[in-house]
Amino acid sequence: MSQEWFTRHQALLEEAVRAIHTRGYWTPFPEMPSPKVYGENAMAEGKAAALAYHDREFPLQDQGTPERWVATERSPYGVELTPKYPVFAVETLVRQAENAMPAWQRLGPEGRVGVLLEALVRLNQRSMEVAHAVMYTTGQGWMMAFQAGGPHAQDRGLEAVAYAWDEMSRIPKAAVWEKPQGKNPPIKMEKRYEIVGRGVGVVIGCGTFPTWNTYPGLFAALATGNPVIVKPHSNAVLPAAITVRVLRDVLTEAGCDPNVVQLAVFDDRQATQQLVQHPAVKSIDFTGGCAFGQWLIDNCRQAQVYAELAGVNTVVIESTDDYAGLLKNLAFTLSLYSGQMCTTTQAILVPAQGVQTPDGVKPYETVVADLAAAIDAFLSDPRVAFAVLGAVQSDETMARIDAANRGDFGAVALASKALTHPEYPNARVQTPVLITCDENDEAAYLEERFGPIAFVVRCADRDAALARAERIVREHGALTLGCYSIDPAYQERMVDASLRAGVALSFNLTDGVYVNQSAAFSDYHGTGLNPAANASYCDAAFVARRFAVVQRRWHVKE
Amino acid sequence: MSQEWFTRHQALLEEAVRAIHTRGYWTPFPEMPSPKVYGENAMAEGKAAALAYHDREFPLQDQGTPERWVATERSPYGVELTPKYPVFAVETLVRQAENAMPAWQRLGPEGRVGVLLEALVRLNQRSMEVAHAVMYTTGQGWMMAFQAGGPHAQDRGLEAVAYAWDEMSRIPKAAVWEKPQGKNPPIKMEKRYEIVGRGVGVVIGCGTFPTWNTYPGLFAALATGNPVIVKPHSNAVLPAAITVRVLRDVLTEAGCDPNVVQLAVFDDRQATQQLVQHPAVKSIDFTGGCAFGQWLIDNCRQAQVYAELAGVNTVVIESTDDYAGLLKNLAFTLSLYSGQMCTTTQAILVPAQGVQTPDGVKPYETVVADLAAAIDAFLSDPRVAFAVLGAVQSDETMARIDAANRGDFGAVALASKALTHPEYPNARVQTPVLITCDENDEAAYLEERFGPIAFVVRCADRDAALARAERIVREHGALTLGCYSIDPAYQERMVDASLRAGVALSFNLTDGVYVNQSAAFSDYHGTGLNPAANASYCDAAFVARRFAVVQRRWHVKE
Repeated sequence: MSQEWFTRHQALLEEAVRAIHTRGYWTPFPEMPSPKVYGENAMAEGKAAALAYHDREFPLQDQGTPERWVATERSPYGVELTPKYPVFAVETLVRQAENAMPAWQRLGPEGRVGVLLEALVRLNQRSMEVAHAVMYTTGQGWMMAFQAGGPHAQDRGLEAVAYAWDEMSRIPKAAVWEKPQGKNPPIKMEKRYEIVGRGVGVVIGCGTFPTWNTYPGLFAALATGNPVIVKPHSNAVLPAAITVRVLRDVLTEAGCDPNVVQLAVFDDRQATQQLVQHPAVKSIDFTGGCAFGQWLIDNCRQAQVYAELAGVNTVVIESTDDYAGLLKNLAFTLSLYSGQMCTTTQAILVPAQGVQTPDGVKPYETVVADLAAAIDAFLSDPRVAFAVLGAVQSDETMARIDAANRGDFGAVALASKALTHPEYPNARVQTPVLITCDENDEAAYLEERFGPIAFVVRCADRDAALARAERIVREHGALTLGCYSIDPAYQERMVDASLRAGVALSFNLTDGVYVNQSAAFSDYHGTGLNPAANASYCDAAFVARRFAVVQRRWHVKE
Repeated sequence: MSQEWFTRHQALLEEAVRAIHTRGYWTPFPEMPSPKVYGENAMAEGKAAALAYHDREFPLQDQGTPERWVATERSPYGVELTPKYPVFAVETLVRQAENAMPAWQRLGPEGRVGVLLEALVRLNQRSMEVAHAVMYTTGQGWMMAFQAGGPHAQDRGLEAVAYAWDEMSRIPKAAVWEKPQGKNPPIKMEKRYEIVGRGVGVVIGCGTFPTWNTYPGLFAALATGNPVIVKPHSNAVLPAAITVRVLRDVLTEAGCDPNVVQLAVFDDRQATQQLVQHPAVKSIDFTGGCAFGQWLIDNCRQAQVYAELAGVNTVVIESTDDYAGLLKNLAFTLSLYSGQMCTTTQAILVPAQGVQTPDGVKPYETVVADLAAAIDAFLSDPRVAFAVLGAVQSDETMARIDAANRGDFGAVALASKALTHPEYPNARVQTPVLITCDENDEAAYLEERFGPIAFVVRCADRDAALARAERIVREHGALTLGCYSIDPAYQERMVDASLRAGVALSFNLTDGVYVNQSAAFSDYHGTGLNPAANASYCDAAFVARRFAVVQRRWHVKE
């Protein structure tokens, strides 16, 4: 079955490999939730399927007999959706994973990739269900939940499979080694090379992007021969649980032990620590805060840790030939999912003397006022506002918004407003808050303030802004750096700064792409070079250390 | 110049890349020290060149003004060869490396690879000089010093360059990303992708293979855009110093800052610790003992550590169709360079009831006696003995041989004898010592006894031998595992054990290949899966984390 799937999806795989080598636009998973693509009633059926999990035992009975069932989620939309998940002892999960590993390994790269491609295609077919699960657990607006939670996450999963395949397929299964011996017959050996996964993988999800940030590690670890235990964020279990279920179904159909992929839900924080420190766990993929991420790196020395942590994403505004486009683009960036993206800009650096525009120099104060006005204008249409903002995922983010509104982080240029969602009256909807401060007020803007909180930072001049942007990335980390400048010399210096600091740079975004967006197969998400992340989605380094080659050899006698 | 070299050596590079993908026999560097290949007077000239370094300041004046000059070596052959090396402050070395990095990075993959291929070709031309430096500092016999120190080391360096190239060349320099927008014009972006090294690399050499174990990390780190500080073992500086000199010459000719490669010699152990813990140091390649290797892994958290440590290499003898060949092969393995190879067998596991051979079952005691006799017979020809054994490199190994001879590690089946070298009367030449013990005498044979000390371990039966072999590798690490068996079922179980334990397996070596030999482009040296090493020469994982991709993008307006 797995070989059959490999053959069926081989063209898809080859296209994906071509895409990671050429990095133009490419995706096999349509990002528009069109009935023509996903089915006439798919939207309603997906929503119903997601809501049907409420208050029921999530169907994972084939994972064994749980110790108990727990419900951990609370929807930021106030939707009633609290499925019950099985709790297993850490030792049970690890033992089941270890038992599943040898056969998964023996299936070989083709077999494993066949299974994973089939799973991705089925996940795509269930995008509507997964998207509603993402929306209701994370607070994302519908369109983002569909795109980022469905096809874009599947893209990232496929990208990881493509990288794994690209590495594994260049290792021959066998070789004949024939060494000339002058006039004597050559020495001849046969050799076999086996790709061996390093051991049990654990993938720890985050509360805001439970599929997009989970699929890269999940599919990379699986493709390279490792069983995986998925430990979602307690607030966003359902999207991961559906994913695990789809994978287990496909594994079962392929005749594999479904415990190649297991779901771990704990009601005890210590269980997570016990799991990640288990000697059999050899890789950990983590997205989340710096404190736990650093704890993982410091304490899980038996494993390779791939960590995407927090940072201070920065934009420098030096000059522009499209001031209105700049404001509109930034207003969208700051509003999208209420800034609850690891790529959202937090620090906007503006020279004190202002920004050159076609209408002359806009002083710092004017830029602040214009950006505040642009956000207000952008969100003035409630349809747009509710679609883009979504809801606030966590109590901690709500508390940070309150603190920002109170002026705890600096002078408030634009306060966050609470909006009442017409469809979900209990949803926590908040507009962005904009703070002004001086570049020396480092305590204010140099700590990650996750959520819709951005700082317009007054810098001495454009050189100071450039130097500070580099220092922010080097010392505090960033996944994104933006620069508005029409001066080629300044652009060049910004490029050099981005290379030294190791951060993806976007110039002059005034159109339909935003600094916080990252497209699979084309954009590297994270570099691994600055404190915001020690790995990238996706590159060779993300997959190459998840497996090794074990060889055997023997003489061939003629 | 670097581009010219790239073009000149491109065919060589392409052949090397083809070799790592097909893994048959291949090398561009002839392993026979033939005058036809290396020059009529090359042998004498190389020897003279090596000896001419004695008591003089090693020509590295272009590395700056040293704080002082030190001589650290003492030849195991008793040859007078104590060059003086420049000592620099750690801060000086790191600053010079950091200063050299941006331009090295800007040179790009082609330019860097061009420089490195030219350096490898020149190192090959100087093989006779390097080989004598290796022989006199390490104690290797001439032929091994030439082959392992010259062409085979160059092979491993070229292999690392090929892997780095293979990874880097699949990353496009630029892309146009064009996303369809239905009836509207597409969104179009231009993107650039830069390969960026992670930072300063440190390569720490060992006292026994100062080029073979140094070149993989050195060339992998350089090719991927990092400056490297080479810190050789204090007993074997010269081969590394000549290598650094050749690289610096080539760099200078290419118009690069020669400080892309620097030599570090310290007369103070703390300086090494200070160097490897420097925040700018991002990769460390290390070959040597477990204690310092583990210290590096535990304390140099700012860097990726590639460590080849110690282990207990194991051979299981279950049955054979060529008993004489088996004995001869093992006798050579144990004698070669007096067991001072990280791949030499230490534990030979034999079932108590004996080994099946064409002449019937040979009981354990017979196998011991026959192996001892085979070693004696093999070394009875002094010409063979001195050529193969070489000299003992360190005082510590001499002390271990004495302890083994005294019976400190178990019953002595064959004592080590001191031989007087006809040409080098002060050389420390020792034949192997063979100890017998029971598999339960773990304290004896489960610690690495580096040098010509091997244990014939009596196991309860063949199943016990198999299980123990796996446990030894898993718990104590091994670079090599050998198995003599003509039973396909037993072989299959041994394969499974090797996959679980993660170790390269050689079956039934009775001919001209030995378990402790590893051929570049075909054999993976180390897997990274067991405690003997956390990396492999060479695979994608060995190069992929040494660089990252930093991108930039901007809208294209039509």
